[in-house]
Amino acid sequence: MSGREERTLARIALAWLTEPGTRSVHQLVDELGPVAALELLLDGGAPDRKLRATVAARMAGGDPRAVAAEAVERTARLGARIVTPEDEEWPARVADLHGLQLPEAYRRVDTETAPPLCFWVRGAWPLAEALERSVAVVGARAASGYGTHVATELGYGLADRDWTVVSGGAYGIDAAAHRGALTAGGLTVAVLACGVDRPYPMGNAALFERIAESGLLVSEWEPGADPLRSRFLIRNRVISAGTLGTVVVEAAARSGATQTAHRALAMERPTMAVPGPVTSAMSVGVHELMREHPKTRLVTGVAHVLEEVGRIGVDLAPPARGPDRPTDPLDDEAGSVLEAMPRRGTAGVERLAARAGLDLRTTLRKLSLLEELALVVRREEGYALAPPPRSTAVRAAGP
Amino acid sequence: MSGREERTLARIALAWLTEPGTRSVHQLVDELGPVAALELLLDGGAPDRKLRATVAARMAGGDPRAVAAEAVERTARLGARIVTPEDEEWPARVADLHGLQLPEAYRRVDTETAPPLCFWVRGAWPLAEALERSVAVVGARAASGYGTHVATELGYGLADRDWTVVSGGAYGIDAAAHRGALTAGGLTVAVLACGVDRPYPMGNAALFERIAESGLLVSEWEPGADPLRSRFLIRNRVISAGTLGTVVVEAAARSGATQTAHRALAMERPTMAVPGPVTSAMSVGVHELMREHPKTRLVTGVAHVLEEVGRIGVDLAPPARGPDRPTDPLDDEAGSVLEAMPRRGTAGVERLAARAGLDLRTTLRKLSLLEELALVVRREEGYALAPPPRSTAVRAAGP
Repeated sequence: MSGREERTLARIALAWLTEPGTRSVHQLVDELGPVAALELLLDGGAPDRKLRATVAARMAGGDPRAVAAEAVERTARLGARIVTPEDEEWPARVADLHGLQLPEAYRRVDTETAPPLCFWVRGAWPLAEALERSVAVVGARAASGYGTHVATELGYGLADRDWTVVSGGAYGIDAAAHRGALTAGGLTVAVLACGVDRPYPMGNAALFERIAESGLLVSEWEPGADPLRSRFLIRNRVISAGTLGTVVVEAAARSGATQTAHRALAMERPTMAVPGPVTSAMSVGVHELMREHPKTRLVTGVAHVLEEVGRIGVDLAPPARGPDRPTDPLDDEAGSVLEAMPRRGTAGVERLAARAGLDLRTTLRKLSLLEELALVVRREEGYALAPPPRSTAVRAAGP
Repeated sequence: MSGREERTLARIALAWLTEPGTRSVHQLVDELGPVAALELLLDGGAPDRKLRATVAARMAGGDPRAVAAEAVERTARLGARIVTPEDEEWPARVADLHGLQLPEAYRRVDTETAPPLCFWVRGAWPLAEALERSVAVVGARAASGYGTHVATELGYGLADRDWTVVSGGAYGIDAAAHRGALTAGGLTVAVLACGVDRPYPMGNAALFERIAESGLLVSEWEPGADPLRSRFLIRNRVISAGTLGTVVVEAAARSGATQTAHRALAMERPTMAVPGPVTSAMSVGVHELMREHPKTRLVTGVAHVLEEVGRIGVDLAPPARGPDRPTDPLDDEAGSVLEAMPRRGTAGVERLAARAGLDLRTTLRKLSLLEELALVVRREEGYALAPPPRSTAVRAAGP
């Protein structure tokens, strides 16, 4: 077993033993690395009594290392993959959870908000890339027709402008946002509170399949993990930390969706809310949020959302690039053509030439180069970006 | 003619000659008094050419002094009255208009926002007292069912808690707010943009009659004056300046209601807005207001409104009192009984005793005293506050 594989297995075991988000575990991993941290816990050396008890209780249910190994196999069988901070597709933004402190945090879900140990991912897009330009659209399960309409429009409009729509896959607002994005042919990511192989709620099973096909299903829990109640709230921190901003569409008073917004606020991420009729119980939480947190921005549509997150997107430095990316050997002209490629779908040579600001001849030459490099594929209707390499659990946990 | 009568006539003539709100006229009155200011204008001595032209044009239509005298007579015939800054019932709060400066003010309605020269008032309540605890509830004429519902509830709830509901008497939100207050048996004030004898819009004529009976019709324009388009916007400054806070219920983009809110914001008065569905054109202006002016407070009902204006009300020093108010000779106990009187309707001795914290015997004795002083009247159903002395134009303009 390679060191990397061993570290991945240790992360899986740690997540299973202690539940994602546990701050003391995250600290141990930071200090000792995942392998030594796991050994310490398995030897009964957890830094606090509560964690020792948790570990002991979990160990009674199985051998953590065996559980982890089984999870890796199961992941591979699913065609899913495990992503850890060692992987290029790890979404760096979730590291902001490290410093997250919620005001008046007493409950476990409000204190144990450390970054994830690892992710399970189903879908072709690299996770970091999918989240690079992403907005969370969250809200009530018992959404009204109004809320569903607005969430669908937001999902559609964001996806249509090449923003990834992130939500929790729940009924109501979440599902509407995902569906809107899918309708626009865009990218949508469902962050689940259970295994990526057992979509919850079941009623959204077909939706999850569609998301896995064109977008991503993401979870901090191993395949087969149950959607425990507490996990939804633990999961919410990832939705707000993984995106550039969070929009709450409808929410009852003090609900899960406003909780996601509170995490975004605490991380000083753009936090937005869609108002609604004051006569609607489903807008009470949204109005409360706006009243209690003046930094919550009232938004009435996609344009307002983009005003908030677009600003941030522009200000952000381009993501740091390793030395061995396939785009490195490209000259400026080939780079321009690659940038001119639509994020989804195809484009003809003429359109690409116009967007790249090059003549047809040069564009065709550069397209040949890009095809050679497997960055672009030629289809009947025109040129398209090549699908990202389909990673598997074996790759993620392998040598 | 007494000096006071002369000054009142001069104010009426000035308002007619130059339209209310004209800053240079207000300054002249401040410096010279209304009589000399009028003489100056009539002699062609207006400080700027535009004002000279306005005065000359108006004078071609009649003799300002004769117009004023006729207005006084007509006012008396209506059973209305003229109120000037010399009257005890002048609402001191409108003086804040003096310092009002609107950002990006180019149009006349945005620059000529000086305090009123005088008011015409129909109704029994002293104007200042009616406005002492008052909230403006304003909004779109083409209100939706939702907006009408919310405005009615706000009007009812505010009046039910002894707050005066001030609005502009228009169709839609204004009318709903007035009606809500009337339904609660409360006090409501319609600030008109035309004479108090020619209610506009005509469709609200019955509403205006009801308001005049139990509340107040107020205007800066003489009886018979037309509801010119520009006057509505000029009038709006009085709605925001005369109240402790302004609530916008529904408003189209850049409408009259949001203009009233801008005036309230510029005077640092609590400015509130009721959100609505983002799909409703009638909520666009409200959401715009909240987005553009972070000091606009989102409110969803009466409790939120009272949180804003109540705070101010509590912080405010009690209004300064002249030496000759009829309540001055009252001892503490009589004062307590008077304070225990309901602002409207009647109360029995037992209820008054309980509210005043006195025994029945003392309460009865003090009620006799209050009756003697004509502060309280005994009715079949119990005791009521005596109606305020019914002022008339003769009193206002008289010696």
